Amino acid sequence: MQIQHDEITVLFLSLGILLAAARILGELAQKLGQPAVVGEILAGVLLGPTVLGRYFPLASAALFPPTGNVRVLLDGMSTIAIALFLLVAGMEVELSTVFKRGRSALGVALGGFLIPFALGWVTASLAPSALGSEPNASTQLFALFFATAISISALPVIAKTLMDLNLYRSELGMVVVAAAVFNDLVGWIVFAVILGMISTGGPARFDVGATILWTLTFAAFCLTAGRWMIHRMLPWLQAYTTWPGGVLSFAISLALMAAALTEWIGIHAIFGSFLLGVAIGDSSHLREQTRQTILEFVSFIFAPLFFASVGLRVDFAGNFDLSIVLIVLVIACAGKIIGCGLSARLTKMDWATSWSVGFAMNARGAMEIILGLLALQNGLIQQKMFVALVIMALITSMMSGPAIQRLLRRHRAMRFTTYTSPRFFRERLLATDRLEAIGELVAAVVVDTRHDAPELVDAVVRRELAGSTGMGDDLALPHARLPNLRRPIVAVGISQMGIDFNAADGQPARLVCLVLLPESSSADSLAILADIARTFKQERTREAAIQARTYTEFLAAIRVEGASSPPLIEAGVDMVSQSTPPASSQTADDHESRS
Amino acid sequence: MQIQHDEITVLFLSLGILLAAARILGELAQKLGQPAVVGEILAGVLLGPTVLGRYFPLASAALFPPTGNVRVLLDGMSTIAIALFLLVAGMEVELSTVFKRGRSALGVALGGFLIPFALGWVTASLAPSALGSEPNASTQLFALFFATAISISALPVIAKTLMDLNLYRSELGMVVVAAAVFNDLVGWIVFAVILGMISTGGPARFDVGATILWTLTFAAFCLTAGRWMIHRMLPWLQAYTTWPGGVLSFAISLALMAAALTEWIGIHAIFGSFLLGVAIGDSSHLREQTRQTILEFVSFIFAPLFFASVGLRVDFAGNFDLSIVLIVLVIACAGKIIGCGLSARLTKMDWATSWSVGFAMNARGAMEIILGLLALQNGLIQQKMFVALVIMALITSMMSGPAIQRLLRRHRAMRFTTYTSPRFFRERLLATDRLEAIGELVAAVVVDTRHDAPELVDAVVRRELAGSTGMGDDLALPHARLPNLRRPIVAVGISQMGIDFNAADGQPARLVCLVLLPESSSADSLAILADIARTFKQERTREAAIQARTYTEFLAAIRVEGASSPPLIEAGVDMVSQSTPPASSQTADDHESRS
Repeated sequence: MQIQHDEITVLFLSLGILLAAARILGELAQKLGQPAVVGEILAGVLLGPTVLGRYFPLASAALFPPTGNVRVLLDGMSTIAIALFLLVAGMEVELSTVFKRGRSALGVALGGFLIPFALGWVTASLAPSALGSEPNASTQLFALFFATAISISALPVIAKTLMDLNLYRSELGMVVVAAAVFNDLVGWIVFAVILGMISTGGPARFDVGATILWTLTFAAFCLTAGRWMIHRMLPWLQAYTTWPGGVLSFAISLALMAAALTEWIGIHAIFGSFLLGVAIGDSSHLREQTRQTILEFVSFIFAPLFFASVGLRVDFAGNFDLSIVLIVLVIACAGKIIGCGLSARLTKMDWATSWSVGFAMNARGAMEIILGLLALQNGLIQQKMFVALVIMALITSMMSGPAIQRLLRRHRAMRFTTYTSPRFFRERLLATDRLEAIGELVAAVVVDTRHDAPELVDAVVRRELAGSTGMGDDLALPHARLPNLRRPIVAVGISQMGIDFNAADGQPARLVCLVLLPESSSADSLAILADIARTFKQERTREAAIQARTYTEFLAAIRVEGASSPPLIEAGVDMVSQSTPPASSQTADDHESRS
Repeated sequence: MQIQHDEITVLFLSLGILLAAARILGELAQKLGQPAVVGEILAGVLLGPTVLGRYFPLASAALFPPTGNVRVLLDGMSTIAIALFLLVAGMEVELSTVFKRGRSALGVALGGFLIPFALGWVTASLAPSALGSEPNASTQLFALFFATAISISALPVIAKTLMDLNLYRSELGMVVVAAAVFNDLVGWIVFAVILGMISTGGPARFDVGATILWTLTFAAFCLTAGRWMIHRMLPWLQAYTTWPGGVLSFAISLALMAAALTEWIGIHAIFGSFLLGVAIGDSSHLREQTRQTILEFVSFIFAPLFFASVGLRVDFAGNFDLSIVLIVLVIACAGKIIGCGLSARLTKMDWATSWSVGFAMNARGAMEIILGLLALQNGLIQQKMFVALVIMALITSMMSGPAIQRLLRRHRAMRFTTYTSPRFFRERLLATDRLEAIGELVAAVVVDTRHDAPELVDAVVRRELAGSTGMGDDLALPHARLPNLRRPIVAVGISQMGIDFNAADGQPARLVCLVLLPESSSADSLAILADIARTFKQERTREAAIQARTYTEFLAAIRVEGASSPPLIEAGVDMVSQSTPPASSQTADDHESRS
């Protein structure tokens, strides 16, 4: 049926609202230390039948109609979105690390599939009705479905969580991603078998053996000959086609065709685009700018749309059955975390890393939901079971990030902006010498301390006399340690004329950052000074900051210009430090070698 | 209806093939001096009913099914694609230029609407059957439709053509775009009236007066308060959200909502995203990198998909009626070119620029096709008329670029790579001094000249002794003028150790470009030397070029690293010079001030 005028209106409106809501809640989730993906799914829950549909059913039906062209379009768009997201996830994979870690990954994948599968199968066989099996359905089939559903990891969610935590390119990340790929391949093949047994439609294109064979052939092709051909073609494209459009279109159109191929084979489209992404991303001829354009557009437009659309699919409140939810959750978590954790430990990882692998692999998402949806349509499970699966997917995804952060003792990176405030910002210092400048900035912060102004000035000046804090390059960092301070305070002042701080380069400072530090916790304090110096190392950043007329413009200047790493990684940097655990030293290296 | 497994396969496959074909033919069109958009539409014609459907009907029906979910998805995607393309087109508008040129634009828009409208109305009223009117349809209505259809310009095609020609940001470009916006607004309002008269569906949401009022209100809001609010919000987003994701999602989701609003008002969705793009692009807080990410992804992914989908819609061969095509084409061109050209001349442009405006405004495209499609569905016109409209749109689009190039005497920019060749490339010079280096490069080119090697070496060495051609920074440019040379020849040699060319910086040259010039045409010759020097000015480019192991890698290095301007503009730079006509000096300035 032709798309109608009104449907186009609704399509644009619902996409616009979905994207805006997903991104806003995604940003909020990140501020709360959660992966953005949790906020994005939540946006769908709020806009879907669970909340909007319950309280404003007309608005909900108008925005996200349950049937018709708009529904088809939203579903289709989210399918394309997830395939493109997996392309990006694939491009970020470091094949060399995966190969190096192949055995560990295989072990984790097997342990993480077999143990939850066994647990799920036994439970569902013994008590199918407690899990909301359809009365007429075969217990065998139901048990097989349930066992598979809790055994499949969710590559997209895992990839997103690892990216959000800046762990994707670490060894831990590569083991987990490789394991998730193996796990999902096995899971989807088993699922194809089940689907063949329950499907009410026509026969599957291939029998199980052929599906497995095709899948392995395609994967092998992508990782060998395909990879080589792409590596050879990229310089040619860069030389003879519009730049960077040639490479961009090449990557996207190949990914779409690869997705079509795997969908045709009978496994999901996302495997095709993922494997193609691996092949493209591995080429040293792929320029950072092309990688980044795809990464940014997909991560900030397509991925949020997909994850929000997941939350749209069911009424979580109306079909909520506590006992089923709890049983599913406990079995799924226990099976997966123990299965993967023990397998990881067997490959000689330390316990903290092993459990991190377990929690990372424990994240579920789109896969469970697609699988559950198909089972629902084929009359194998009830709505209650479906809701339990989605809730399990959400909770495991939410647990994943914080658990890994805690296990690996990753904490927020030290940014000096944590200790600034609009009140501590002076866009136009009147001072003509450093004493006056220190006085002005002390006046800005004094009410937030338990000291009085002369005391503060005295401490800072004493430090200043012991050795100049003019760093050169327009920056001065007067600072002092104080006994009664509860937390660090950073005041920022800008002087267009510049103030002489006795810098080694003989130039006056136009950016003066007054740093007041508590007497304890010396490590943190040093980190603040180092972070300020690092932030203003680039001239462009300094100039932009000096031009700022409001505190917001100042923050904008250092956020934008200070970003030296790819943005997705940058998003992670704000959330976790790169320096603590053994696994992350690798991350920092990889990361620097690419940026 | 739920999307089926097989439909997902087809969707990915058809999108992948469509994108690949559109981009390949788009690149070819550019190589032939045509705007890329012509190749993109042609890709759709080849893949659509006209060619693929005629000779391989099963393949065509399988890839691009005429009905069903895949059809809906392809249509919906192309609608979203065109809206996003108009967002980009809007972002590129320089409001200050439009305001400065508002009166000219208004004049051109009016002349360009009224004259073809009158011509079309008279012709269709006098001879409706010659134009393929449905026998039962009202002649009044048919004449009204035909007059409107040939009077509406196609903002997307015009924008793309101007971008392809690197004229978009010129004064000429801004007058044309502003006029096209006015023209289209008027055209769509008239069209809304006609639609109200012929529509077989429910009543329109608003009557004509209300539609006009809403449209003007929305446009005024976007260009004043909306613009101000966006300008205020951008620094906030850059300061407090993930960068650049915050701004990216903000722009796209607002554009989608604005598109929904204008679609709801009753004019097309593209007006909303275009006006919003103008409001966002006008803000000085929008960073170049964000602009570029949106620009690249939309121009190289979404726009080709849309323009290719236009070609998919009809069987051009089967419904071809020469007399109708000719009548439509002549009336459309005469009315538009004369109407716009004379109006432009009245605003004191010179004749060449005036006719360029006429030819630019003469380009039609999506608008005619959408309009024609609606008329077809409502039984107002026959397929033949529809095909004639699409062919008219294609031909006017194809005429537009070359006509402007000829009128403004724009010619291809001088790139030294025009005169290089894989045969003239030596990735590893064995030479240890400049004489040997010159000898090696002369040996590479000598068969392509009518000279012998000693003669060539002698000429080059004589020039070398008259003054060193070591430019410093790794580059040496030995060259000579020769009487019997037909065209310039540039040979490139790389020496990892470097060869002493007596450069001012005392460093050896690792890049040696031997330039042989014909004795005539001194201007061209200087341009080659200047182009080489400019290309290798950046250290990154030099290093990448020196690392190249094949000629293709060498070209890739200078294409990628040498691009200092935004890529869409870069695409244009390769095609036309920026230096000849009066209108283009402005272009070059604008361009530099942005990049």
